[in-house]
Amino acid sequence: MDILNASEIREILKVTVRPEVISFAGGLPAPELFPVDDLRRAAEAVLDRSGREALQYSTTQGHEPLREAIARRMAQAYGSTSSPDDILVTSGSQQGLDLVAKLFLDDGDVVLCESPTYIGMTQAFSVFRPRFVEVAMDDEGMVADALAQALRAHPEAKLVYTIPTFQNPTGKTWSAARRRAVMEIATAHEVPVIEDNPYGELRFEGEPVPLLKQFDPKGLVLYLGTFSKVFCPGLRLAWVEGQASFIEKLVLLKQGADLHTSTLAQHLLAEYLQSADIDANIDALRSLYRCRRDAMLEAIAAAFPPGIVHTRPQGGLFLWVELPPHVSARDVLARSLERQVAFVPGGSFFPNGGHENTLRLNYSNMPEERIREGITRLASVLREVTVGAPA
Amino acid sequence: MDILNASEIREILKVTVRPEVISFAGGLPAPELFPVDDLRRAAEAVLDRSGREALQYSTTQGHEPLREAIARRMAQAYGSTSSPDDILVTSGSQQGLDLVAKLFLDDGDVVLCESPTYIGMTQAFSVFRPRFVEVAMDDEGMVADALAQALRAHPEAKLVYTIPTFQNPTGKTWSAARRRAVMEIATAHEVPVIEDNPYGELRFEGEPVPLLKQFDPKGLVLYLGTFSKVFCPGLRLAWVEGQASFIEKLVLLKQGADLHTSTLAQHLLAEYLQSADIDANIDALRSLYRCRRDAMLEAIAAAFPPGIVHTRPQGGLFLWVELPPHVSARDVLARSLERQVAFVPGGSFFPNGGHENTLRLNYSNMPEERIREGITRLASVLREVTVGAPA
Repeated sequence: MDILNASEIREILKVTVRPEVISFAGGLPAPELFPVDDLRRAAEAVLDRSGREALQYSTTQGHEPLREAIARRMAQAYGSTSSPDDILVTSGSQQGLDLVAKLFLDDGDVVLCESPTYIGMTQAFSVFRPRFVEVAMDDEGMVADALAQALRAHPEAKLVYTIPTFQNPTGKTWSAARRRAVMEIATAHEVPVIEDNPYGELRFEGEPVPLLKQFDPKGLVLYLGTFSKVFCPGLRLAWVEGQASFIEKLVLLKQGADLHTSTLAQHLLAEYLQSADIDANIDALRSLYRCRRDAMLEAIAAAFPPGIVHTRPQGGLFLWVELPPHVSARDVLARSLERQVAFVPGGSFFPNGGHENTLRLNYSNMPEERIREGITRLASVLREVTVGAPA
Repeated sequence: MDILNASEIREILKVTVRPEVISFAGGLPAPELFPVDDLRRAAEAVLDRSGREALQYSTTQGHEPLREAIARRMAQAYGSTSSPDDILVTSGSQQGLDLVAKLFLDDGDVVLCESPTYIGMTQAFSVFRPRFVEVAMDDEGMVADALAQALRAHPEAKLVYTIPTFQNPTGKTWSAARRRAVMEIATAHEVPVIEDNPYGELRFEGEPVPLLKQFDPKGLVLYLGTFSKVFCPGLRLAWVEGQASFIEKLVLLKQGADLHTSTLAQHLLAEYLQSADIDANIDALRSLYRCRRDAMLEAIAAAFPPGIVHTRPQGGLFLWVELPPHVSARDVLARSLERQVAFVPGGSFFPNGGHENTLRLNYSNMPEERIREGITRLASVLREVTVGAPA
């Protein structure tokens, strides 16, 4: 396991709980939009109506009314035709990753992933000691030729792991053409593809792009969805959707992992989806995060020294910064923390290391004034460290 | 993984949701004693006071006030001196088993366990493909000489897994002398010992026995505690307690497995432990389960044919039945299901098979009249199948 990187991030996150710290480090949603009142009403309704059932053991695959609601939401958002039987409720998408790793991976197996990729995936998968092969990204997503080449070099690869929409850590979104091209290659090689999509509903601008699973004639995609970013993360409610032969095995693996996800949490969410308006809440999140992203982009444009490039995400929680090649983001972090500003150095997101001149900035969890102030402080550090840098 | 046995149990449990079925099959607590009203109040208090915090991501090791309350309860119940730092909150004890397996087990590693043992353990561990070596039990618990012999035969054994109090599936409780003897052997071999104790607080009669962890000078015991049987199982709240070097690694493994256990569930339990009276609820559970156990024992005494032996548990949820050697509990089950009575054949609890003439009966989830009626029907099946059996 990449324990060093994981610990490093934990150390950074420890600092960020101090209220004086301006944190661009975590991936926390804005708590001011958590539907606390709706949840209070849902708790009352669930405990009044079916308290005993909601507190008892329940089936591993998940509460049926919740799986039905998830299938309806997927149909509505993506025209997907998945049935509740194709859905397994998980204790956060992190558990989806753990179960997928258990299903597919053994010592030395090859996993193909974007470069950079989500560190929670490398942490979950590393327990099973696979080999991560990073596939190049450009502005349209995973480079199809690079994937084809990686699959020729590793025809025995067990999985392709992807976050095609508002990627963590880069904020990039794959184009529709790229999705089609990547899925054609995966289909030809019959390699399972994980489509991790925690941020897809948080689009601020631009046109929605089809899911990978919409270019999947052979049923190779296992789709990971979650309520952590559109409802709240504290209940740990997510799902895996995929073909029955995968889901059946994942159900057995989940039974061994935690029997089932909290019955009460599943009932609360089903009640919330039934009686409250999650789409109104998602609209509010989109507006708030768009303002915060704009504040960050404007502050960067105003204050960052030249020679620094960054992404302009159309949604999601993160943007990605590349410093001049000789500048170490870990040094920048050390100096920023002295000025009470935190972020995650980008090197942590490359399973095979390197890229120490990159960093990830989160904009979802700080108000606009703090974002502007934090970027201004970070910019002053960047001016110090890039003095004399080749342009 | 022992998928066949797991599926078999799932099939049986599917039958038992039909209301006309008298089920001795599951291990469900009595829902009529779930503290629904206390939880409604706790939900109101938590969401009013700290709704945003309770719905946000939280630390992997667990909510500190909850870990403090757990440490206090362990001190109170067992004179244990564990600190909140020695405690990791898990998503049910099933997750504790998954994490322990990840920490200790690889392909082919030897796990020593009671014979029979908890099927949820074999399911969690089997993902890592260990070899289960069963150690003989007698009425005082795991036979110390048999353990010593197994450790001589397998000095590289990675774990000893035990449920010393009101064991699932047998209902047996190890004597204090046996606990001391087993721990002396484990200490000499420096082999980690899992003490899984979900039922320890549900004693109806007899004197409490010290924990294995009270005979553990080298800190080899990882103790698994849970709120599933003394509060409710639907929130999936349990813990692992052990030496810091184990707990630190388990925290990292849990981070990869599900980031953390539901923040809301942890806050609800901490509030419940603070403002309600869990000990009064445990007293009520003890009285109820004692009556149900008595009803079952009396019905067995009145109706079972000769040649059948069974345990007389002093607490917990289960008793264990041994039929004459030639009688198959699976055949008995098939006939019982025709009469709407369900139980779990005992063979499922032996990782290496055999013992098809045994069965497990649960008495916690059915009212007394149904227990009497169910045992009477089961007895009629047993009379049919044991006709002509050698005594």
